[in-house]
Order: sequence, then structure tokens, then C-alpha cells
Amino acid sequence: MSDFFARLDNSRQALAAAGCGALIVGPSKDLTYLLGYDALPLERLTLFILTADGAHLVLPELERERAEAFHSDKHAVLHSYTETQNSLALAASLLKDHSAIAVQPHLFSSFTLALQALLPEQRFVDATPVLAPLRLVKTTDEIGLLRAAAHAIDSVHAKVAQWLVPGATEAEVGRKIADAILDTHDTVNFVIVASGPNGASPHHELSNRRLALGDTVVVDIGGSRHGYCSDETRNYVIGTAPAEYQQVYDTVLGAHAAAVAAVHPGATAQSVDAAARKIITDAGYGDYFIHRTGHGIGLDAHEEPWIVHGNYTTLKPGMAFSIEPGIYLPGRFGVRIEDIVAVTADGVEILNTAPLNLITAG
Amino acid sequence: MSDFFARLDNSRQALAAAGCGALIVGPSKDLTYLLGYDALPLERLTLFILTADGAHLVLPELERERAEAFHSDKHAVLHSYTETQNSLALAASLLKDHSAIAVQPHLFSSFTLALQALLPEQRFVDATPVLAPLRLVKTTDEIGLLRAAAHAIDSVHAKVAQWLVPGATEAEVGRKIADAILDTHDTVNFVIVASGPNGASPHHELSNRRLALGDTVVVDIGGSRHGYCSDETRNYVIGTAPAEYQQVYDTVLGAHAAAVAAVHPGATAQSVDAAARKIITDAGYGDYFIHRTGHGIGLDAHEEPWIVHGNYTTLKPGMAFSIEPGIYLPGRFGVRIEDIVAVTADGVEILNTAPLNLITAG
Repeated sequence: MSDFFARLDNSRQALAAAGCGALIVGPSKDLTYLLGYDALPLERLTLFILTADGAHLVLPELERERAEAFHSDKHAVLHSYTETQNSLALAASLLKDHSAIAVQPHLFSSFTLALQALLPEQRFVDATPVLAPLRLVKTTDEIGLLRAAAHAIDSVHAKVAQWLVPGATEAEVGRKIADAILDTHDTVNFVIVASGPNGASPHHELSNRRLALGDTVVVDIGGSRHGYCSDETRNYVIGTAPAEYQQVYDTVLGAHAAAVAAVHPGATAQSVDAAARKIITDAGYGDYFIHRTGHGIGLDAHEEPWIVHGNYTTLKPGMAFSIEPGIYLPGRFGVRIEDIVAVTADGVEILNTAPLNLITAG
Repeated sequence: MSDFFARLDNSRQALAAAGCGALIVGPSKDLTYLLGYDALPLERLTLFILTADGAHLVLPELERERAEAFHSDKHAVLHSYTETQNSLALAASLLKDHSAIAVQPHLFSSFTLALQALLPEQRFVDATPVLAPLRLVKTTDEIGLLRAAAHAIDSVHAKVAQWLVPGATEAEVGRKIADAILDTHDTVNFVIVASGPNGASPHHELSNRRLALGDTVVVDIGGSRHGYCSDETRNYVIGTAPAEYQQVYDTVLGAHAAAVAAVHPGATAQSVDAAARKIITDAGYGDYFIHRTGHGIGLDAHEEPWIVHGNYTTLKPGMAFSIEPGIYLPGRFGVRIEDIVAVTADGVEILNTAPLNLITAG
């Protein structure tokens, strides 16, 4: 891609509007977005510094070859340091003429605190208001990459039912899923197989619990493909689901449909959350829908816009996010149904295509 | 483990010695070490706050079930917040009576900057001097876990040669290695398969380069097993190695032996680096040994002590680190030989047991 020069120009405008003279970005998807370089989050400093008239990358000498391979159009000056040179002093020397410095949110605090100590007169502020808007509205190409990732994870869900057999552990099933994700993605980002009562914990990790007849299973999985993320949740049942399950399932399905229907240009992010929440609250399960309705997705698995009460962001064509209402009954079971959607010129496109019904496993 | 109360006591002593009233720790191996809780590095705040007389964990409501499962001995008070509550204000209210706050180095800068804005009179400092010494000297149990992880990765290297066949890509080999790591570990931390000229980039990523007769291959792999990391590099050759390779190999092997021989209680970290570097420099390859000789290892794949010029840390029994000298000839090949070693009462134990010779692949 040679979008990078345009991205740097846009960043400079946002930086100036925020009243900052310099932007600093460590290993993160923002670095990938601005520079095309997937740096490792090492204890050694890797820092991209953008100013009105400059673009610099401070990096360890031993990462130079990888960085140069990623960075073929030379839109930043590389400043590499050896193992015994002071990387923070090098970075500070490039920042000293700027009174306000915007800091990419994921930069390690140790680096920010060290730079604050070296540059005591400067003001350091969170760069989220500078960076997040740049990635909030995707291009047609980016939506295409998200769609392809969504179809890839659809194809994994199409295989899951056969692995959910009584006696298998969540961890064993998770490993098969991870392998299937790698067949169609570049990386595995997460694999949640939450069986029976474990389904009531939204971020349950793979355990050695053995699946049994009568279990319902929440399977929430995602990876990255050509840099863009997939994320999809479906629900499975082994044998006959417990009492009340179908009622909960139908409620979540209704909430999912209501949220999708609420997505159109001009709606607010919070109105999508409210649409899902109303269905669940009206059904008497409001206290058991313990998370927001969704999160943006792109280079990061979780990014803006947050689909949550209090977020007045206006939806625009090109925004992409999850719709994932859920109901969690502690000690019993959980249900979550998740698709990725994109805002279109006149409404919404659901990027996932796998059916939304409860899937019979085995 | 119920070492946690002792770990908190030790942390409090170190915190007082550093002149700080509170320690804040986000998702990181320090959180695992202090609390037994492997929190996800989410956009939502998870923050452990340790003071002289308190221990608090601020966390999202939807992580509470996972946190409680990890945290069975109740050594911290959980403060969970819902999706629409202000987590940073909650954290600030727990910190407001402390004038100096030590910040775990990997905490996202966005959280530190937000807390600085909420608590403008407080001083925020890097907690590395508080935290790193706690984990620097391992217990006998921890060395046992590192030894078991080392043997597990030895068993993976024992399988690698069969997969390095002409025509296979680095990525294909890497996937088989990752699968073998998962057979003996809980997670894959990294898989480097750097073939032919790619071997000259120490952190080369898996590529679609196809292996060919005459390639040498640097294979540097590691995972985590019961929380503790493995990390081992061996070198393979397909057919006949290029000219000068054997001479480079023998030099790195000599540097590895010299570094291991330099490890004993009372030696400095930098003296181990110097021992390896002298061999390589004397052989005329000093400019091509572009990284430090090693890094500590434990819960993190890279932690203190750094085996580097300028580190005067005195080695003590229970310290564990890599010895990994290397020579990198750009455009041609690289060689790196890496073992994990532990300092013992009277010298050194090499935790890996795989032979150090160049391995014939295929």
C-alpha cells in the first residue's frame, strides 16, 4: 500500500488540531496503520515520532532489517541504536522542540515516564483523540478485508459442531478450532469455548472441563487475516438444552436483530446498544446483560466505535463493529450471538453469513 | 500457590524503600506474580493497587468471575465496575492519599496519563526498581518449572530436523513447530525459522521462503508451561553449508562456552556478555554480534537480568537467563546458539539438554 503518505498527512492535521507538536507511537496497530511496520512489543524502545515536517522511527539496530523490509517506501527516517546506546535520550532529542506531545495509548508507561523525566517542561497527552478518528471510518478496501475475514471465521464455525462431543475437554476443542483458524487466517487472536455453566463468564478461558450431554456451549473465536480481524460467536447444544435456555436464546436473538436494525448512518452508537438492551430488559433479563453491545473492529480486534450507553458518536458509512448481545445466568449457562456489521450508505451490511440459530453439536 | 501473601509483603517493603505509597499494576506477568490473575490486556481498565495496608483490584464486572476463580485466597479486595461507570475515577479514589505512585512498566500510557490528570499533585514513577528485584532470584520451585519448560522445548527441537526439507516454506515448518510446542506447553510464545540469508535478521518472522539445499536455518522457539517460559535456539543445515559457515559456527559455539563458563555467583551480568563477545571479536566477527548475550527468563520470556555491557548486577544463585551469542552476516546467513542457564550455589546449571552441534536436517 502507498496509503501511508496520506495517513501521515491526515495524522499531522489531527495533531495540529489537537494542539500538539509531536505524536509518539510504539508497537501497536496504530504503528502498523501509519508505517506498515508490525513491531514487536519488546523491552527495547521502538518509537515512531511524527511532527509537522518530520517522521522518525527510533528502533533497535537488530530490528532494522525487519523494519526496512516493511518500510519499502521510506516515509520515515530510521534511527537505530545499539545495545549499549541510550534509546530514550535519542528519542528525547527528537522531541525536545515540541511543547505538547500526544502519546499512543498502548505505549508502555515506563517509556512515557522516562520521557517525561527527560523533558520536564513538555506536556504529554493521550493521543486517542488524534489517532482513533483516523481508523474509525474504513475504506472500501478495508471493509473488503473485514468481509473476507468474516467469511473465513464463518468457515471455521461450520466445522465446530463435529468437535463438540461428550467427553472432549474445552481445551481439546479449542486446539482444533485454533488449527482451523490458522487454515484460513494468519494469526489466532482468541478462542473461547465456554461450556455449560462456564458460558456465564463472557471471557471464560479454555479449561479442562469435559463436555457432557445437556451442555450448551458459547464459542467466540477470531483471528487476523491480511491484518484485519474476525470475531464471531455462535451457540451450540449437545443433546437437550436446560430449562429456560430456549427462552433466553430467543431473547438474545431478538436483541441481536433489533441492534442490527438500528444501524444506519446518522444513528448514534449508543442507540444501537439501547435497541439491544431494550429487548433484553423487557424480557426481564436486563441485569444479566453485563456488557456493552459491541466494539469496533479493524486492525485491532477491539477499537472504536464502542457500542455502549454514553457514546454519542454518529454512525457513518464505513464504520465496522460487532453486535453481540448476551445473557449470562451465573452457575447455569450463557448465550451470546455476535456478528460483525458495517455501516453502509443506506443502512447496514452483516459481514458474517453463518446462520444465527442454535446449532446442534456432535 | 499461597506464596502470594509473602510476595505482597516483599512488594510493600520494596515500595516503602522506594519512597512510594502505592503501586499500580495492570495486566502483565507482575500481576500474575502478585495476584495469580492472568488478566487480559483490554481497553477496559484492570488495575491492582497495593498500599502499605491495602490491596485492591479494580476490574470490569464482566471479568469478575474469571478473577475470582484465579484469586481463591482473597488477598485483594475486588472493586468491579459496569460498562457505564468511570473506572479511572474509581482507581483515582483509591490512590488519592498517596503522594508517590509506582507504575508497573507495561501499563498502557493512556491509563497513566489519565490518572496523572485526575491526580495532578501526585508523582508517578516507574515501578521497575520495585518489581524487578522481586522476580530476579527464582525459588527452587521456579527453577524446577524453568527446567521442565527447557526440557519440553528440547523435545520440540528433537523433532525439527525432519521438517526442514527442500521445498517446504518457513511458514509451513513454523506451523508444525507451533503444534509441537502446544503438545508440551500451554502457549506458543514465538517461532523463528530463519533460513538462508533470513538467518542474518535475529527477529526474522516466518516467511513463504522455500527451503533449499545448501540452506542453514536458525530455529529459535519458545512457549510457556505452567506459567514459565522456554527459549532455545539451534542451527540446522540442509545439505552442505556455505563457505565460512563452519568457522562462524565454531566461533559462536566457543562464545557460548565462554559465556557459560563465566557464570557463577559474584560475577557481574556484563562479565558474561564480555566473555562471549571477546571470543567473537578475537575471531574478527565483533561487528556482526549485534545484540546482547542474553536476557533473564521466568514468567516473562524476557525479563531481568539483561546480560549486556553496562549491567553491573551481581549474579546470585537462583537467577536464570539465556546465553545466546550470534553472528549475522547480512545477505548470507546467521548463527545463534541459545540455552537457558541458572546460577547455582557454586556455578551454573544449563537447563537445556539438547546437543549444541550443527544439526543435519531432512
